Amino acid sequence: MGPGPSDVPERVLQAMARPTIGHLDPDFIRLMDEIKVLLRYAFRTTNPLAMPISGPGTAGMESCIVNLVEPGDKVIVCQNGVFGGRAKEMVRRCGGEVVAVDDPWGRAIDPEKLRSAVRDHPDARIVFFVHAETSTGALSDAAVLAGIARDAGMLSLVDAVTSLGGTQVEVDEWGLDAVYSGTQKCLSCAPGLGPITLGERAVEKVKGRSAPVQSWFMDLSLVLGYWTEGANRSYHHTAPVNALYGLHEALLMLHEEGVESAWERHRRNHLALRRGLESLGLTIAVPEAERIPQLNAVTIPEGVDDARVRGRLLHEYDLEIGAGLGTLAGKVWRIGLMGHSSRPENIELCVGALADVLASEGRSTDRETALEAVNRAVATGVGV
Amino acid sequence: MGPGPSDVPERVLQAMARPTIGHLDPDFIRLMDEIKVLLRYAFRTTNPLAMPISGPGTAGMESCIVNLVEPGDKVIVCQNGVFGGRAKEMVRRCGGEVVAVDDPWGRAIDPEKLRSAVRDHPDARIVFFVHAETSTGALSDAAVLAGIARDAGMLSLVDAVTSLGGTQVEVDEWGLDAVYSGTQKCLSCAPGLGPITLGERAVEKVKGRSAPVQSWFMDLSLVLGYWTEGANRSYHHTAPVNALYGLHEALLMLHEEGVESAWERHRRNHLALRRGLESLGLTIAVPEAERIPQLNAVTIPEGVDDARVRGRLLHEYDLEIGAGLGTLAGKVWRIGLMGHSSRPENIELCVGALADVLASEGRSTDRETALEAVNRAVATGVGV
Repeated sequence: MGPGPSDVPERVLQAMARPTIGHLDPDFIRLMDEIKVLLRYAFRTTNPLAMPISGPGTAGMESCIVNLVEPGDKVIVCQNGVFGGRAKEMVRRCGGEVVAVDDPWGRAIDPEKLRSAVRDHPDARIVFFVHAETSTGALSDAAVLAGIARDAGMLSLVDAVTSLGGTQVEVDEWGLDAVYSGTQKCLSCAPGLGPITLGERAVEKVKGRSAPVQSWFMDLSLVLGYWTEGANRSYHHTAPVNALYGLHEALLMLHEEGVESAWERHRRNHLALRRGLESLGLTIAVPEAERIPQLNAVTIPEGVDDARVRGRLLHEYDLEIGAGLGTLAGKVWRIGLMGHSSRPENIELCVGALADVLASEGRSTDRETALEAVNRAVATGVGV
Repeated sequence: MGPGPSDVPERVLQAMARPTIGHLDPDFIRLMDEIKVLLRYAFRTTNPLAMPISGPGTAGMESCIVNLVEPGDKVIVCQNGVFGGRAKEMVRRCGGEVVAVDDPWGRAIDPEKLRSAVRDHPDARIVFFVHAETSTGALSDAAVLAGIARDAGMLSLVDAVTSLGGTQVEVDEWGLDAVYSGTQKCLSCAPGLGPITLGERAVEKVKGRSAPVQSWFMDLSLVLGYWTEGANRSYHHTAPVNALYGLHEALLMLHEEGVESAWERHRRNHLALRRGLESLGLTIAVPEAERIPQLNAVTIPEGVDDARVRGRLLHEYDLEIGAGLGTLAGKVWRIGLMGHSSRPENIELCVGALADVLASEGRSTDRETALEAVNRAVATGVGV
């Protein structure tokens, strides 16, 4: 129950253990084609370009940036946590010029600040933002932010690592131009692949590049030669066959549940967890309207030893929760309810274990009342 | 039995299906440390820097190049197949200047040509070559080539994708400065990871860079913050946990067999395959002294339909063999005997299937004699 990897269901684990076949085998090609269809379903898009990069989410992120940003391009980067900072670094390494729009960690990105940056820098080509900041638990309004970019003739480049499959993501309806995600959050697949999708405007920018992409491995014009339907599929690299079996199975499971049902499940379980935490006197560090249901940043109470509590949860309860990152290190715990991990029994385990550990660390907690609050919320579907 | 991925043993497949744990979990950190020890064993090195890149062999290749090559660096690239060409492209995309040393496809790299290039370009910083060219089946003398580089004060950067675990690779004894490999060849693990090792001289060059590495994902100074022993392991990206379970298990199996025994097994099985193929009137396209035992490039006989034969092997015998690449497309088949695939029963399957299919395509073959030749070679351990 950390910030990912989430629990991987047995079906997905077993899929990864299927016999490895060749990356050019016709059966494997069919699997690749199905993955693309299922990714479009998850991303809510009809973009032809929807595929997993053969590396973790960070590789998916860099693939988007390295293909879209040309030397000299001005890129407005919104930062409200770790991953916006990483984007700045990547943009600079591609020769792009960063215009920083900074918001407090643990808060959503302020659309007004972006509007003002867009006005001040009408020559910017791209707006980057993180939809759900994994480092802080804050959710930003992707539709509004992407709209501001589009109205100014700029492309939106969106981190949906933690949101995809757990909260509403609407690539087409919201007009997101380039989006990347990971497999180990709400898709509940093992880490190691970076699903991406690019719309027509983003593809046009990539096609119109004057200089080749600085990375050969991530050059979409080459990667697509392998991932595009048709007889002339050309070898680029050896695809991670077994990891792709796992992603295929995880996406099938999302399709079986229905992506809208998955969003609703994450929302309800978040409310139940919140009930239990509040009953223990714990508070969520992010304002209510800006919370990511699948990643709960909990303020560590004064006087409680961060690492010690996490260590005890891990060793005594077999339960991993995440530490704070960056400016929030030591100040919050990050409790994930992502994908297959977002289940009532996990909420009970976590709230019960926190009640025990905090009690033995000298805090006053009432385990039974907290668990009752969780159970009531789960039963009624209304957390608060 | 293509040029990889090779057959993955059940033990490795089952390892990949173990429950996914956090990439910062102490148990996972122990596994990472063991992987490093086992990789040093496979690479025959005491280099502290030995680790898998979280992407396929191509990502391992680009990681080495992008860290070692600075803009303006002159790099001598030996090419005798597809992968030398790829290296040229990657060096150029890093701003390096390529000095090309070209040899015929299907032949080893000629040390004399490298000597002459080194004389003509004493200001070159790096010599790149492929130890075992997967695209052609030709093995070059890595010890001699690396020695030429070292004597000229240049670093050697070596592709050992197909050789590692299947033919002798001696990183320390041969003085190889930077080496990358893949998991899906003679290590018989699923594709998706790129093991690399860098010696002291290579690490010094990386540390002495004046410009940051253009890739954030592949920047070794950042990646090492996560892969280096010690308490302050810092988050870089989410490691592909399940893929690393598989690599760990595959490296354990190599250690159990003994890496020298594995080389010997590959050599003997290659000789047995060769007996069978010759008995069918087929010849290996590479001169005897330059052959990779684990990858046999077989000349396609005049009048035989390349794709049709491969298709029939796949559909009627469940047997995949590889097509030729680049200038060898349509001219050779590539039959792999890599890692777990390098077993007598596979040789029998392949020789028997080729005998049948070639016969029904109008060639005169004697199945029984060919299989007897294989069996005799397997029994005596002497193929020819």
